Amino acid sequence: MTGRRSLLLVGTGLVGGSFALAAKAAGVFDHVVGVDLDPKALAEAVARGAVDEAGEPAAAEGCAAACVAVPVAGIAACVRQVAAKVPVVFDVGSVKQPVIDALAPPPHFVPCHPIAGAAGGGVGAARADLFRDRTVVLTPTDATDRAALNVVRGYWRAVGGRVVVERAEEHDRRLAMLSHLPHLLAFAYVEVAEGAGGLAGAGSGFRDFTRIAGADAQVWADILHANADAVLGHLDELMAALGELSEAMRGDREALRARIAAAARVRRALEAGGL
Amino acid sequence: MTGRRSLLLVGTGLVGGSFALAAKAAGVFDHVVGVDLDPKALAEAVARGAVDEAGEPAAAEGCAAACVAVPVAGIAACVRQVAAKVPVVFDVGSVKQPVIDALAPPPHFVPCHPIAGAAGGGVGAARADLFRDRTVVLTPTDATDRAALNVVRGYWRAVGGRVVVERAEEHDRRLAMLSHLPHLLAFAYVEVAEGAGGLAGAGSGFRDFTRIAGADAQVWADILHANADAVLGHLDELMAALGELSEAMRGDREALRARIAAAARVRRALEAGGL
Repeated sequence: MTGRRSLLLVGTGLVGGSFALAAKAAGVFDHVVGVDLDPKALAEAVARGAVDEAGEPAAAEGCAAACVAVPVAGIAACVRQVAAKVPVVFDVGSVKQPVIDALAPPPHFVPCHPIAGAAGGGVGAARADLFRDRTVVLTPTDATDRAALNVVRGYWRAVGGRVVVERAEEHDRRLAMLSHLPHLLAFAYVEVAEGAGGLAGAGSGFRDFTRIAGADAQVWADILHANADAVLGHLDELMAALGELSEAMRGDREALRARIAAAARVRRALEAGGL
Repeated sequence: MTGRRSLLLVGTGLVGGSFALAAKAAGVFDHVVGVDLDPKALAEAVARGAVDEAGEPAAAEGCAAACVAVPVAGIAACVRQVAAKVPVVFDVGSVKQPVIDALAPPPHFVPCHPIAGAAGGGVGAARADLFRDRTVVLTPTDATDRAALNVVRGYWRAVGGRVVVERAEEHDRRLAMLSHLPHLLAFAYVEVAEGAGGLAGAGSGFRDFTRIAGADAQVWADILHANADAVLGHLDELMAALGELSEAMRGDREALRARIAAAARVRRALEAGGL
């Protein structure tokens, strides 16, 4: 169709579906061709209005851009499959360096990570405002084309994101601490809490602490696997801190109080700063 | 004053202040005498209307009941100080057996734990509806007077709580898992995350996971110290689970996915069940 600006969306889950909804609402694209290995997810994305046309990767021909929004382990293969057919391709994965390493990425591939999510996942939770005021990290390599980078930066700004550029390795190390380690802890904690005899009567602290454990299992298995070195490095640091706190719990209550007070101050400062 | 039903409130923080507000709103008491080691906290409780009269423990004479709402390490001493002056005395501490052990408790002392809180703490966050639809655990001993138990049960029901009775030891073991261990993890995690170079750009998952780390340091140092055996026992279980998940992160992604999926199912079922 002449004049139509089409997006190829590979992976029609929460993040991809939200990008499609948001980009159409912002007028960046007026047509979205969706591709998903799971026909149910694809049908749901069509029903939600995120996808206008269920397609195949071959449908990338004529699209202005391709957004690859699949779990981390599948990103490189999907980018390879569609890159030659579109002027710009970008992903939304939570781990960047392993994807870059697996790809020898073409210059018009822009690695992206919008730091936004919703409990449960799936296109059913997709929202046009998912990226509003949320940080979107772009991790171009030295080989990334500057024009492609600017185009993709424009997409994220159009959907309300706050774009920052960071080295992929630094991003992965930072997110291992701020996102991947908490997920690992929450998964392990829910497992042992359930095993210890039920979760009835848990309070609001438990509810908040474990919310991230309801995340998509495939997405998170891929993230933790891809970023295992960084996450397990940070887990070692946590274990050391827990060892010291455990000792204080057995003896020095004032040392324990002082460490808790320091952590509480950090957390309250974040809240006051509008976390 | 003739006919006045007075409560002696020892400790005018979040939980005590909320109980005073709620009990007056429900008509259980019409006058609250407040006692606090911290004159600022006491003045704030008066300003908030939680306390009608700043007093001394000696003011317990003539009160219908005493509520001891101080950090765990101080409960036994406060109960001892006021018990002889009132027909009924109860506490609100998060750990029960060590308090009972320290007291050789009089029959009219009813150990209580309302499972309700608010980030930050302090009487500034007190609310008359803090206990509405929240679980309140009563842990009477064999020596506890049944009439006193019923009186205190009535107070908690009047302020909207769902009262359950449980053995103190079982309560402490269960809460170690459902509340104390998550707090320990959140304190340790915030400490190492801050140390690793700043928390800027953290997402909503981080915000929820760390919310409990903003808790009151004295309250939580006392809880973790008093319940150290149970908490550290559960921490060992968590370490074992983390060890297995770490191995799967290095190798078997499908095993990792299956374990995450099981945890996610548990968490989502809780959410669906109205956690």
